[in-house]
Amino acid sequence: MFEISPTTRLRRSPFFEATVKEGVTGFYPYNQMLMPTGFGDPEAEYWRLLNGVSLWDVGVERQVELTGRDAARLAQILSPRDLTKCAEGQGKYVALCNHAGTVINDPILLKLDDRRFWFSIADSNILFWSRAIAAERGLDVTIVEPDVSPLAVQGPKAEDVVAAVFGDWVRELKYFWFREVEIEGIPLMLARSGWSKQGGFELYLMDGTRGTDLWNIVREAGSPWDIGPGNPNSCERIESGLLSWGGDTDDGTNPFEVRMGRYVDLDVPDDVVGIGALRRIKAEGPARHQLGIVLDGDAPQPSHATWYDILQNGRKVGDMTNGVWSRRLERNIGFALISQACSPGESVELAKDGNQISAKLTDLPYF
Amino acid sequence: MFEISPTTRLRRSPFFEATVKEGVTGFYPYNQMLMPTGFGDPEAEYWRLLNGVSLWDVGVERQVELTGRDAARLAQILSPRDLTKCAEGQGKYVALCNHAGTVINDPILLKLDDRRFWFSIADSNILFWSRAIAAERGLDVTIVEPDVSPLAVQGPKAEDVVAAVFGDWVRELKYFWFREVEIEGIPLMLARSGWSKQGGFELYLMDGTRGTDLWNIVREAGSPWDIGPGNPNSCERIESGLLSWGGDTDDGTNPFEVRMGRYVDLDVPDDVVGIGALRRIKAEGPARHQLGIVLDGDAPQPSHATWYDILQNGRKVGDMTNGVWSRRLERNIGFALISQACSPGESVELAKDGNQISAKLTDLPYF
Repeated sequence: MFEISPTTRLRRSPFFEATVKEGVTGFYPYNQMLMPTGFGDPEAEYWRLLNGVSLWDVGVERQVELTGRDAARLAQILSPRDLTKCAEGQGKYVALCNHAGTVINDPILLKLDDRRFWFSIADSNILFWSRAIAAERGLDVTIVEPDVSPLAVQGPKAEDVVAAVFGDWVRELKYFWFREVEIEGIPLMLARSGWSKQGGFELYLMDGTRGTDLWNIVREAGSPWDIGPGNPNSCERIESGLLSWGGDTDDGTNPFEVRMGRYVDLDVPDDVVGIGALRRIKAEGPARHQLGIVLDGDAPQPSHATWYDILQNGRKVGDMTNGVWSRRLERNIGFALISQACSPGESVELAKDGNQISAKLTDLPYF
Repeated sequence: MFEISPTTRLRRSPFFEATVKEGVTGFYPYNQMLMPTGFGDPEAEYWRLLNGVSLWDVGVERQVELTGRDAARLAQILSPRDLTKCAEGQGKYVALCNHAGTVINDPILLKLDDRRFWFSIADSNILFWSRAIAAERGLDVTIVEPDVSPLAVQGPKAEDVVAAVFGDWVRELKYFWFREVEIEGIPLMLARSGWSKQGGFELYLMDGTRGTDLWNIVREAGSPWDIGPGNPNSCERIESGLLSWGGDTDDGTNPFEVRMGRYVDLDVPDDVVGIGALRRIKAEGPARHQLGIVLDGDAPQPSHATWYDILQNGRKVGDMTNGVWSRRLERNIGFALISQACSPGESVELAKDGNQISAKLTDLPYF
């Protein structure tokens, strides 16, 4: 692969120095920042997440903060999900959509209080988007990207580590709920959350000068559980059926096509962006759905940087959006964004670099 | 530096394969795509641009296409510059601003006809932005990112090369004007343009499957002039005073602060986004301006990935946003985004990695 060149358009996370000290080997860009992608031992990093506890710099999950009299109203206008029952200290997974009903991001919305919300975003510019909608509607709300950078602690032993640092109360914290805490003078928001299905927490660091300190506190507290560095793991997340916005979606993907229909409430007010389009799409039936795809053969294929066509009877029926060698299934698996006419169990062909590989469609998730 | 990891969130340019064959050594991300950053011989690449002709993959300069009855109206609403005299086949450099008057991109606007425009954008999401404004205002316009990827031919001998391929008429083409042409069945828009001050053209490839073909046509036609690969050159662009949006600007930079005031017309209609804020800022006077900064000493400093504080009398007065070793001046030079109270000729200190380096403020451009 190629070197990533320095540029001031690509920001570093507060945990950058800590990850360099841990031996980070690669990055990719995410929200105009550098996101670690590995520490030199992919196999150990995978099993550490599955069986132990792993520490991830996910500072690239930026917050878009809404503050002011109309903050709650704007949060709802941007989210086609009923937020009326969202409590202070609670988070909700939402499918932000544009006016055509296309998913433009899939953040966690955190309700700090009635006048203050964070969208903890995936890889697209929601700062510009939300400012455009707020200003065009004349809302009384301030929108900024605050100095808040999550550090994830993930894996079955994450709870023990986080409890060792912050106390046993964290064991009672419900999924996507959070609480403001402080450790050695470092302010943070502690949430049960994270982009894996192995359980864990995200520590939303609220002082960018203290990244290395926070990393080291968790690193040291975790040593009895053999904590080590990691990052969002493409094998685990595909096995677990977790969506990567922008990787598994395109410029016409609606929430119903990518298993997000359960997070859409069609009876939200008419002023919610995209709700008219979503009602129409739901009534007409979306064109595609997201399935699993398992390739024939047991030779690991490298991770890919482009979508591949999926064919049935010689005709294109969809795309394989991401694929990976599954360490648990010992098969190459992936996500198919594919015609509703295709169902789990059916055989298809994958057109890859001039070859055709036989494959079978499956349900999601794999685990 | 670090490896850039493969991800389907990071797209390749149609010229990717050609640049790999040319020996590209690094990339950085730009508009969610890979942009080549060098071919292994920075000194030769610099002088080739200054004295010869250089071929650049700038496919990352994506187009945001506005089509339809209200396309012209939306182009004006998004641009605080009078477009009434913009002719078909003409381009204009514009400072897109948000409602607060902050620059959110600095594209070239190309008027294809009365109902069709391209914003040829810098590194931020103007597709989402323009869709938000258009939908909120109920405009009849379709907004897409078309299959259009520029290839730049830059340097004093670029005109000879482009004339050899397309004919001598290109010598008469005015700056930022363009014309639709075809070469060996490849459709493209040919413009006199490019992100250097050495002269040249951009070939807006309109068929992404023909990238290697177009690269090779220009490469072969250019061999009598010793054409070679290159990319937007940070040394040349800083010497020439060219702005890098997002690299030299922050979330509060208005056009007057970065020498774009001449592209702002305060008498555009009141419905232009940000015009109210821009009138206020102009009346009150912007807080900062952009100057050059020349560091003492003659040891080349590496290019940097963060801004550095500029101090005067021990107090922070601004930031050095980008800096480079100037091969022509044989000094480390850069851009200062600095208080209006500071003027060219004054001495300052640069706080860099724990050291203070004496420096002098200068006018821009350097050449």
